Amino acid sequence: MTPEEFRRNGHAAIDWIADYWASLDDLPVRAQVAPGDVRRLLPESAPETGEPFDAVLADLDRVVVPGLTHWQHPRFFAYFPANSSPAAILGDLLSSGIGAQGMIWATSPAVTEVEQVVLDWLAEALGLPDDFRSDGAGGGVIQDTASTATFTALLAALHRASGGEVRRHGLGDAGWRVYGSSQAHSSLVKAAMMAGLGEDAVRVIGVDPLTQAIDLDALESAIEADIGRGLTPALVHLAAGSTSTGAMDDLVGAGRIAREHGAWVHVDAAWAGVAAVCPEHRTHLAGVGSADSFVTNPHKWLLTTFDCSTFWVRDRAALTGALSILPEYLRNAATESGEVVDYRDWHPQLGRRFRAVKLWAVLRTYGLEGLRAHVRSGVELAAHVADLVAGDDRFEMVTEPSLSLVVFRLVAGDEQTMAAMEAVNASGEAYLSHTTVEGRAAIRLAVGSWCTTRADVERTWRALQAAAAEG
Amino acid sequence: MTPEEFRRNGHAAIDWIADYWASLDDLPVRAQVAPGDVRRLLPESAPETGEPFDAVLADLDRVVVPGLTHWQHPRFFAYFPANSSPAAILGDLLSSGIGAQGMIWATSPAVTEVEQVVLDWLAEALGLPDDFRSDGAGGGVIQDTASTATFTALLAALHRASGGEVRRHGLGDAGWRVYGSSQAHSSLVKAAMMAGLGEDAVRVIGVDPLTQAIDLDALESAIEADIGRGLTPALVHLAAGSTSTGAMDDLVGAGRIAREHGAWVHVDAAWAGVAAVCPEHRTHLAGVGSADSFVTNPHKWLLTTFDCSTFWVRDRAALTGALSILPEYLRNAATESGEVVDYRDWHPQLGRRFRAVKLWAVLRTYGLEGLRAHVRSGVELAAHVADLVAGDDRFEMVTEPSLSLVVFRLVAGDEQTMAAMEAVNASGEAYLSHTTVEGRAAIRLAVGSWCTTRADVERTWRALQAAAAEG
Repeated sequence: MTPEEFRRNGHAAIDWIADYWASLDDLPVRAQVAPGDVRRLLPESAPETGEPFDAVLADLDRVVVPGLTHWQHPRFFAYFPANSSPAAILGDLLSSGIGAQGMIWATSPAVTEVEQVVLDWLAEALGLPDDFRSDGAGGGVIQDTASTATFTALLAALHRASGGEVRRHGLGDAGWRVYGSSQAHSSLVKAAMMAGLGEDAVRVIGVDPLTQAIDLDALESAIEADIGRGLTPALVHLAAGSTSTGAMDDLVGAGRIAREHGAWVHVDAAWAGVAAVCPEHRTHLAGVGSADSFVTNPHKWLLTTFDCSTFWVRDRAALTGALSILPEYLRNAATESGEVVDYRDWHPQLGRRFRAVKLWAVLRTYGLEGLRAHVRSGVELAAHVADLVAGDDRFEMVTEPSLSLVVFRLVAGDEQTMAAMEAVNASGEAYLSHTTVEGRAAIRLAVGSWCTTRADVERTWRALQAAAAEG
Repeated sequence: MTPEEFRRNGHAAIDWIADYWASLDDLPVRAQVAPGDVRRLLPESAPETGEPFDAVLADLDRVVVPGLTHWQHPRFFAYFPANSSPAAILGDLLSSGIGAQGMIWATSPAVTEVEQVVLDWLAEALGLPDDFRSDGAGGGVIQDTASTATFTALLAALHRASGGEVRRHGLGDAGWRVYGSSQAHSSLVKAAMMAGLGEDAVRVIGVDPLTQAIDLDALESAIEADIGRGLTPALVHLAAGSTSTGAMDDLVGAGRIAREHGAWVHVDAAWAGVAAVCPEHRTHLAGVGSADSFVTNPHKWLLTTFDCSTFWVRDRAALTGALSILPEYLRNAATESGEVVDYRDWHPQLGRRFRAVKLWAVLRTYGLEGLRAHVRSGVELAAHVADLVAGDDRFEMVTEPSLSLVVFRLVAGDEQTMAAMEAVNASGEAYLSHTTVEGRAAIRLAVGSWCTTRADVERTWRALQAAAAEG
């Protein structure tokens, strides 16, 4: 493909995307395929001879689209929003065209410096403490996912707590323990597994049955009991917006307990953190000022194409101490001067693409006003759903609405709740996901796409009502 | 940005990329900025009000381009090629537009099934053993980088060797050890650090001074000595193309030693593996048939925009055993049926984008013939460089050319070698990187871009000759 063919095919690809979005309203949200259906439509082997790019576009329509669950559909309300906004897509496209490797500052300085600036911008926009800014001892970095952020936070915690012994000699016999509530994201357990601690090292702390927030007394007791047994608290994981119900841990209280016992405080606000662009939606981050690390995902609710998980640390030396490597072929004057940041040492990967462009494009083209309007729209639509639930005796709220997430159920019971959700999902009209709260099934409706309207929410609600009537 | 504005701005972004490529020949390859130069050109805060997308494009020219080292430049010969080809860029663009999350099969089936098919295609095209195909006990997955692949290989190795004890109870006191040559990629040490083993757990094995390949006797002695001390060999890392000189470990001999002692064999062919699309460039993979895992990066030499690191395992149960998690909100019938693959359990991250589209687009639009022509062109240009080195008494080869990588130096000594390279790099005419081989400095010239011609190689050589004459 020559550069001129790239122009022509590129315009066609852009148009394919715009047409795809325009078609979504008429497509079933959930894929209507069985295992193997997509695979059977594809040849056994790669072609010997090159095909025109049009053939790829045609197969997107023929093979791929029917096998997609459409995350950009206006009535996709499952899991969490995963906005891929026009601005972000074009920002990421430009990054692909530039094709620079930002593994260290020297391999393409703009990749690192734009990322530092954009992370400082976002930290300020979210009201994060100055300690997280890049002009002090801390700093931000774009990770691929919050799972990776949590894992690196754990590595930094072990590095700090061990005075560097872990990176040199391994975990040893300190009996490291990590703490999180029963509502903590599954990536906490996965991080403990990957770091060599094992699932057993994770202390699962109970929650308040009403708010689903971590029980502070239980946290303190667990930590003290472990210390009494000669074990060592390494990290406390706090959720500012849990995946299941959007529960908010008390960062002030839990943070104080963690610090008193020497543990690293990691705040996981993967979904809910970006809401803090609105001053009125920052209460759940009260106490983040004393956290050691904080993660939120612009690739969820802040319009930035996956992957873009923004992660800040108060003391970058703990992070880079845990992860730094310097092979001969990457030695260079800028690194040795200490004047630059080499992001290679901030995450598990060595290579990294210029992900800051997409976030830069989002912050600039929406502006903070535009981002606030987007978040407020999601919160308002969720409040509207809560009103609809309250207005129908067959349904009840399970927890209070949390920002743009509503968790509810059918009064009739678990089976009816799951059946109603499944009926709506199977119809293709909308797509919802489930959870369990205090042992009972519940439906999660997560608003947040840039193309969801009040009409989409109401249409989804009518489908749920119809399913409840039939069930 | 409305969908119609997306069309207009999207066409402009495509054109910006084509224009950027056209401008590269006249731009210095290496960025001409000092630390902080890029940062100083950007505002202190994100804008309150949205700006037009044109403003982002204008700032790419004003702020970003001068701060880039241009990895897509036809005379970029440093580190390794990082091709971002037109087809791959458009494939990835389409993935952004679709914006699907492939964390499990059920969240968008086509994301998983297209990836399985494309990985099977590539395995066949590279002549990999059938055991790595998805229709048996093995399978392939796209990781972000080879570093992550090596890390997950280590986790799988520990899982298998411990019978699952590591994921449940942690590393314990088995004294796990991993082995690689002094030329192994730095990600091996990083993997050991991240997995909780520590740097000390990595046994650095010597190499043959001429070929830089791992010393088999030293490997065997090290493993046996460790076993004698009550330690446990977990993984042997073998390089099929080292980063420094493209050295090829003996996979047959080293693989046999590793297997005899129960260690997992991981083959890291990040750069050189894709050359196996050409039957005549498969000799370095002889023995891969008995490896437990294998990684190669289409995002290096195979024209696929970063990130795309293809990783195969013989026994996917060891990998998913080490990494599986199943929170309630991801429970679904397809997963429970066992008929599908959930890629969430193949890597550290939970979320994942539809990366297979870009590799699919590359395999289809180039075809295997086109990919072979691309690889052969790189190998031929490297051979031409080796001839040029041989024809100038001031230079000498350090090692034999390895595929498209040439390693050479000035006869006069280390200082002159580094000075000549630095002079060329500072001029912006071309960009090269260095290494040390047996304690002496050397210049690496890695060919492989889709837009590098014989004229680019010769122009670079003349610049090196001029620098040598002045030095």
